[in-house]
Amino acid sequence: MSQPGPLDGPMPPVGVIGGVGPLATAYFLQRVVQLTAAERDQDHVDLLVLNHATIPDRTDFVLGRSTADPGPVLADDARRLERFGVSFVVMPCNTAHYFTQQVLDAISVPFVSIVEVTVAAVRRRAPGSTRVGLLATAGTVASRVYDDAFAAHGIEVLTPDDADQAEVNRVIYDQVKAGHRADADALRGVAARLVERGADVVVLGCTELSVAAVDHGMLDEDPFCDSMDELVRATILRSGHQVR
Amino acid sequence: MSQPGPLDGPMPPVGVIGGVGPLATAYFLQRVVQLTAAERDQDHVDLLVLNHATIPDRTDFVLGRSTADPGPVLADDARRLERFGVSFVVMPCNTAHYFTQQVLDAISVPFVSIVEVTVAAVRRRAPGSTRVGLLATAGTVASRVYDDAFAAHGIEVLTPDDADQAEVNRVIYDQVKAGHRADADALRGVAARLVERGADVVVLGCTELSVAAVDHGMLDEDPFCDSMDELVRATILRSGHQVR
Repeated sequence: MSQPGPLDGPMPPVGVIGGVGPLATAYFLQRVVQLTAAERDQDHVDLLVLNHATIPDRTDFVLGRSTADPGPVLADDARRLERFGVSFVVMPCNTAHYFTQQVLDAISVPFVSIVEVTVAAVRRRAPGSTRVGLLATAGTVASRVYDDAFAAHGIEVLTPDDADQAEVNRVIYDQVKAGHRADADALRGVAARLVERGADVVVLGCTELSVAAVDHGMLDEDPFCDSMDELVRATILRSGHQVR
Repeated sequence: MSQPGPLDGPMPPVGVIGGVGPLATAYFLQRVVQLTAAERDQDHVDLLVLNHATIPDRTDFVLGRSTADPGPVLADDARRLERFGVSFVVMPCNTAHYFTQQVLDAISVPFVSIVEVTVAAVRRRAPGSTRVGLLATAGTVASRVYDDAFAAHGIEVLTPDDADQAEVNRVIYDQVKAGHRADADALRGVAARLVERGADVVVLGCTELSVAAVDHGMLDEDPFCDSMDELVRATILRSGHQVR
């Protein structure tokens, strides 16, 4: 039987390295659909989503708690998507961007980074800003992916103190990942204390926090800038579609 | 550069022919994640979701309003998923099951049909039943996919009268597909009139109605049996996982 060629849409599908985590991946897909300006099914973005849940834990590796390296697996997933025939690749997980170079080295199609699009969004929103806040997992904080990207533009990243980071962890792990309702006011309080310390914008740098932000209508609320929302918008625009 | 092999999880990923429509596909992925008994990311189901939004309209073809045949495209998508290396294939869209034979002919891995798992669920729930109701698009009704599958077990399918079908269409097209809140009470009223006519169970045979059912907590509500919920459960179990 003959093998099918690439999809015949206006452009090849967007490749999504997903499963890191699985719920964030499902939300990413849902948000792309909801935010695409579309009158009918056929106006939507074609995507190929590899929800690879069984990838080794990113945070455990970054923090040195595990030697199971997710980097080569993410690189292989990028290759699998490219071999299928995708136009570009995205990865709706902040911590996984610690392994960006391995993904870049694996493929020749473009990779649209959640970190880069978020940094660009913050700079558009607060031109001349020298400090941003970051709410994220301990893994993302330790990975320094945001520190390095913001430092390239002379912007310092402020992270919560230990007590506030414990609050953020509680929302991520005990609430959103566990399927419970997030304590949005706790996040607002942590963000307010980062603003007091000089942050002009507070980045939601963890897709579980993005899920909470969608559920609680915090996407357009100051001082938040949601990384997943920025990646959703970049994905829609880059695939030749308009944002609703 | 060497090509990566198949995923090294406990079993190959589940292949999802998606995009028909895109929002239903995102909900399907989300529901699989939410209903999987999992303590951590790695306990979840690996899936490969081809959100192929630009597939020609299924209802338009079934009703003879268009000559653009989605069948060969769905068959090609099934082949693409099989070539990637999936364990079995599902398609979270009822109307698209009109093209089931073309999908079956295209692949050698199993295809888990939303129609077959729904018929099985109805028979478990109402043993000896001879009548079920069906809420679906005009395309699914005209495709007779449910009539034929239920008829094989001596069960007659009752569909709403013209006024009630117009109500169902309004919920599907003007509300859910348009991103508005569904009128759940309208669906309950239509279902009640099918029960008066002898239906023991009323199948939600359209993924947009499944979206409405999730949003309004109708999944465990009599007399409904939601086809997407049944496919979600079958996908989880068939992939070697447990339902939460």
